[in-house]
Amino acid sequence: MSNLNAVLSRIDAELDPALDRLMDLLRIPSISTDPAFKGDCQRAADWVVAQLQSLGVDAEARPTPGHPMVVGHIDGPADNPNCPHLMFYGHYDVQPVDPLDLWDKPPFEPELQDTPKGRVIRGRGSSDDKGQFMTFIEACRAWKAVHGALPCKLTFFLEGEEESGSPSLVPFLKENTAEFSTPDLALICDTGLFGHDTPAITTMLRGLLGEEITITGPNKDLHSGMYGGIAMNPARVLARIIASLHDETGRITVPGFYDGVPELSAELRNQWQSLGFDPAEFLGEVGLSEPAGEQGRSGLEMIWSRPTCEVNGMWSGYTGDGFKTVLPSEASAKISFRLVGTQDPLAIRESFRAMVREMLPPDCEVAFKPHGASPAGHMSTANPMFEKARVALSDEWPNAAAFVGCGGSIPIAGYFQSILEVDSMLIGFGRDDDQLHSPNEKYDVECFHKGMRSWARVLAAVA
Amino acid sequence: MSNLNAVLSRIDAELDPALDRLMDLLRIPSISTDPAFKGDCQRAADWVVAQLQSLGVDAEARPTPGHPMVVGHIDGPADNPNCPHLMFYGHYDVQPVDPLDLWDKPPFEPELQDTPKGRVIRGRGSSDDKGQFMTFIEACRAWKAVHGALPCKLTFFLEGEEESGSPSLVPFLKENTAEFSTPDLALICDTGLFGHDTPAITTMLRGLLGEEITITGPNKDLHSGMYGGIAMNPARVLARIIASLHDETGRITVPGFYDGVPELSAELRNQWQSLGFDPAEFLGEVGLSEPAGEQGRSGLEMIWSRPTCEVNGMWSGYTGDGFKTVLPSEASAKISFRLVGTQDPLAIRESFRAMVREMLPPDCEVAFKPHGASPAGHMSTANPMFEKARVALSDEWPNAAAFVGCGGSIPIAGYFQSILEVDSMLIGFGRDDDQLHSPNEKYDVECFHKGMRSWARVLAAVA
Repeated sequence: MSNLNAVLSRIDAELDPALDRLMDLLRIPSISTDPAFKGDCQRAADWVVAQLQSLGVDAEARPTPGHPMVVGHIDGPADNPNCPHLMFYGHYDVQPVDPLDLWDKPPFEPELQDTPKGRVIRGRGSSDDKGQFMTFIEACRAWKAVHGALPCKLTFFLEGEEESGSPSLVPFLKENTAEFSTPDLALICDTGLFGHDTPAITTMLRGLLGEEITITGPNKDLHSGMYGGIAMNPARVLARIIASLHDETGRITVPGFYDGVPELSAELRNQWQSLGFDPAEFLGEVGLSEPAGEQGRSGLEMIWSRPTCEVNGMWSGYTGDGFKTVLPSEASAKISFRLVGTQDPLAIRESFRAMVREMLPPDCEVAFKPHGASPAGHMSTANPMFEKARVALSDEWPNAAAFVGCGGSIPIAGYFQSILEVDSMLIGFGRDDDQLHSPNEKYDVECFHKGMRSWARVLAAVA
Repeated sequence: MSNLNAVLSRIDAELDPALDRLMDLLRIPSISTDPAFKGDCQRAADWVVAQLQSLGVDAEARPTPGHPMVVGHIDGPADNPNCPHLMFYGHYDVQPVDPLDLWDKPPFEPELQDTPKGRVIRGRGSSDDKGQFMTFIEACRAWKAVHGALPCKLTFFLEGEEESGSPSLVPFLKENTAEFSTPDLALICDTGLFGHDTPAITTMLRGLLGEEITITGPNKDLHSGMYGGIAMNPARVLARIIASLHDETGRITVPGFYDGVPELSAELRNQWQSLGFDPAEFLGEVGLSEPAGEQGRSGLEMIWSRPTCEVNGMWSGYTGDGFKTVLPSEASAKISFRLVGTQDPLAIRESFRAMVREMLPPDCEVAFKPHGASPAGHMSTANPMFEKARVALSDEWPNAAAFVGCGGSIPIAGYFQSILEVDSMLIGFGRDDDQLHSPNEKYDVECFHKGMRSWARVLAAVA
């Protein structure tokens, strides 16, 4: 353990420089979904490469049709040729920042702020995922500084398209299977703690299916006085379609949608009940009070093990100041489905599109634009490294670590399994109030600090 | 009649300079609903004042809390002190121009274009309403040039807020009742021909009620992975509300909505049937084929004598490029109702708001923003000037003139009745394919030309 304690002390002593490095990265507006920020994504990739190179990692930014992949390799200690080989994954891209007027500070001018709940790093990407993956890189930096080498062989793999459907990811992995299929396990740092102080290893991830639909009626916007009452209004058609996607009990009505949705095992149900999740407290953080999902399901089921259908955006007609008495020619919506178990994203996409087409009245047409389709992920905890990591995390935090689910989609874990046949262990230190994807995103300094320490412990445990 | 013929000849000879003057006016982007164009609205008002002054009219732009009112007075011929006193109304403001990318040419760089259907004036406001009211001003110009005086006493009244709910109109009329309550009849030029060649005097106008609603759920946009399934989504709530506003037969479900909606008299029903309105042809112009209104109603009823409820715009969440897996905090819609008979706009507003509030699930709030409320208008044709004008119009056009309805709202006629006790005669020369409120708005040169000639004939007939 003295190996480890020296590294932990080094992490404590070097917290401020580590924070400074994170701030540099947070100043790069690497919004992957908006083509206007392509150059910034390249800058972020190059910045990460430089960090890895400073650890002695053989790293480079590999070009793709989209944003670059950051890839790096480094051996373990020379005196331990049989050390395990781990792969680490993170993403250097971030979400868009609108609505900008709801940010208290510019999203890409990060700050350390003291709040009633403690010290936080404020800025887009501080938690998702720049602050998170830097906990691992900084843990490696401390280990290297203390011991001159890392405790195991490592492959680094960071992408820049996680927030925009990862279009280049699968082709890149398939073209480089030989390079990436050798690790014993992949470590993914893009998840959170459970509650405030319970470290979590995420073993269930929901999949994601994205669809954009545009309903077209008249061939141009019309005067609602001249045509109102006789002309088809596509905004009304779209509203009818969206309203029909859920029944009165909150179940999704797309035919066949629930094929492959499993019930929880009694064991997992008991484990989750013991976590003492309080929906009112969870929702209270965002100004809500009551679970609004499927009737008869627990709060954790709603966010971890049940599928969803949500409207992420919709728009039609005149949306500016004042009023315009227009009948819109078009109405559009961005709709996403969170998937669980063995739900088939492509089958659901076809069923959804067929359902929409069936609801179209005369004189209306629909166009569909796909936005990603990834199945749910399930991690096998058979590998003994899972239990070793669980114990290591329990040593760092007030509460014992738990195996949990995650409502979000981290398709990478599924791709590592299906393409590389490498299992993944998801460990992260985000908190529920980090405002991911929202204005004023933050990451607690405590999470950043204990996150670095946690990774040092996990590396020591599995090495 | 030689009085008249000399004026008609003058109008024919001076068509080109009249077109040039209209082009000057069309170059002023007087969009009243957008505060960014306030200065342009003032410029348009000053331009109209200068035109009236050039006719010897005592005219000025009177300030209001919004955009100016253009007011002018001129006496009739000195040798006929008993000539009638007419008031003329038009509006110098125009609709917004988005979506801008659907315009073939910049909306405020007007052009004369030769099309398969004849020569047109292309540009925002060419038909609604700048080109229309200029037909009257140019008819007066010709009359003055030929006879040295106008055939009757005239009061000019042009507003700049017609496309944005006319907030200053009623207060202005009430403050100046003495000045405006003396005319025998008001002439309003903001309507159209029936079909291609049938001049029309509009005797029925639908009212308009505008409402903007914003549904709020969570206190910020949420990550749809973390909260999807448990958190209320206001976009889904809004869609449900909009979908519920019509039943399967196309009737509007707002309680009490149809109070005061009259059935057509057998006489008017026969007159309208004789007009040979073809819904398929009318809708074919805009890429539609089937009437989408109330079951069991004729096409003309749907657009002239039946009330409507339409979505003019709606927006929520992420509407930019790509995809953002966000649960929106807010969802908004601009909704308008076209009213007929004696429907009470304020009673309907309250009933609509109560219905929306009743549909709100837990954790949702709604905010309402009113956008104008005007009842339907019905013109009494008892005044003999109506029949004189009908005959005069029939002399100018291929088909005999008809008394018709109008689906649009021209609240001014109602205000002239209720505030000034002055009846209105609505005569205009727009065509169904003028693309009012849409990209590429146009006005046929034939309509501009025969419109000027029509006004000369009407003035001669009623004088």
